[in-house]
Amino acid sequence: MTRYALLIEYDGGPFVGWQRQGSGLAVQQVLEEAAAKLNGGVPPLVQASGRTDAGVHAEGQVGLVELPGDLSPVRVREALSFHTKPHPVVVTRAAIAPEGWNPRFSAVSRAYRYRILNRRARPALEAGRVWHVPVPLDAGAMHRAAQRLLGRHDFSAFRAAACQAKEPVRTLDRLDVSRFGEEVVMVAEARSFLHHQIRNLIGTLALVGHGRRPETWPRQVLEGRDRTRAGPTAPPEGLCFTGVSFAAALDWV
Amino acid sequence: MTRYALLIEYDGGPFVGWQRQGSGLAVQQVLEEAAAKLNGGVPPLVQASGRTDAGVHAEGQVGLVELPGDLSPVRVREALSFHTKPHPVVVTRAAIAPEGWNPRFSAVSRAYRYRILNRRARPALEAGRVWHVPVPLDAGAMHRAAQRLLGRHDFSAFRAAACQAKEPVRTLDRLDVSRFGEEVVMVAEARSFLHHQIRNLIGTLALVGHGRRPETWPRQVLEGRDRTRAGPTAPPEGLCFTGVSFAAALDWV
Repeated sequence: MTRYALLIEYDGGPFVGWQRQGSGLAVQQVLEEAAAKLNGGVPPLVQASGRTDAGVHAEGQVGLVELPGDLSPVRVREALSFHTKPHPVVVTRAAIAPEGWNPRFSAVSRAYRYRILNRRARPALEAGRVWHVPVPLDAGAMHRAAQRLLGRHDFSAFRAAACQAKEPVRTLDRLDVSRFGEEVVMVAEARSFLHHQIRNLIGTLALVGHGRRPETWPRQVLEGRDRTRAGPTAPPEGLCFTGVSFAAALDWV
Repeated sequence: MTRYALLIEYDGGPFVGWQRQGSGLAVQQVLEEAAAKLNGGVPPLVQASGRTDAGVHAEGQVGLVELPGDLSPVRVREALSFHTKPHPVVVTRAAIAPEGWNPRFSAVSRAYRYRILNRRARPALEAGRVWHVPVPLDAGAMHRAAQRLLGRHDFSAFRAAACQAKEPVRTLDRLDVSRFGEEVVMVAEARSFLHHQIRNLIGTLALVGHGRRPETWPRQVLEGRDRTRAGPTAPPEGLCFTGVSFAAALDWV
């Protein structure tokens, strides 16, 4: 048996999320059924760095699969991208997984991008890829409010009720908000995030961007540790899991 | 009656192109049927700066429509974007059209972007937005070859058989090729283009990018004026009509 690390891109739109749910197709399932073709017809487990929600996209999800024999990583990459057709899920790179490496527990940093289309007209070209906010947002105010949230904190105020993490303390390393023309783009980085943490942070910062709350408010919400005081959860389609860092670089092909 | 200029964005994927064809839905038709709601139920003519082909996208198509009364441009913009639902066609801006202004004949420059996803794996997130070229392209060689095509020339070698233009001479002002990670992006600007001119230029430059033809070859093809000697027509989904310039700026809202 050989263990392979996989770099995975997908359009989250048609899926119930990374993980299997009661009904509907999961990204994990598409990959496991593709990997079954290399595993005597039996779907092997594919583990991932992050269990993205329904509608959330990925450019840089990282997975792990164990397969019989000693196929080259190129062969595994090509075969999996072929067998995931016609679903919008591809393996862009593969590597031999180092001894003891795990996509979830070996990750030292995860990065996400959130895109807001901030104009009156609904999206035509970027529908399903952005959150449409028709009222003008002050990206500078959102950025300044975000900087007050960096560091190690109890993020209970931004945590989904369904969050399964044992404890709510996380270290937020980066939360940048920038405007590019009609788009407001946020980049978030941390070793790990709580369930819905980024989407709850974005929904809260958007209220600052609207001018409905002051720049100091998100920090107050953080300190209150009360989810009911934060802003709404921003919709999933604006979110993309862009990448994962590991202590030792993988030998991707 | 009042004449309105419209700035239009659409996803070309579901349409037979800007213009009505024998069957299938046209972008023009979606807009004319939306405008009928402001015209006593009768679809008015919507003219455009460029008649994009099936599958070609637009961020900055410009249209002209004449409507009864004196609705504000904001009202026209909002109403048209509402009545085009659920189609991926929106009016992002509107303006009162100056006397004698026409989106086709008053245009002094048109700009297009062409995106190639240049990696082994097929696109998942950008499917329908890019041309997938799995073999490595030398964007520098493509750019240098493109610079030899700038200026005023007979572009017969890059013209579709079905092209209806009276004469094949055009002035190509810009044809830049740049790499951004896995993407090779081309930007083309001219007062006007022949039918399929950009897609034929891209298909020809791609052969240079592959290393299958030298950098000097596209210029030779140009000078030969023989369509059968040029490269294949690049697929429509990589192309986006990004904008139009006019001698006098419009007062967009």
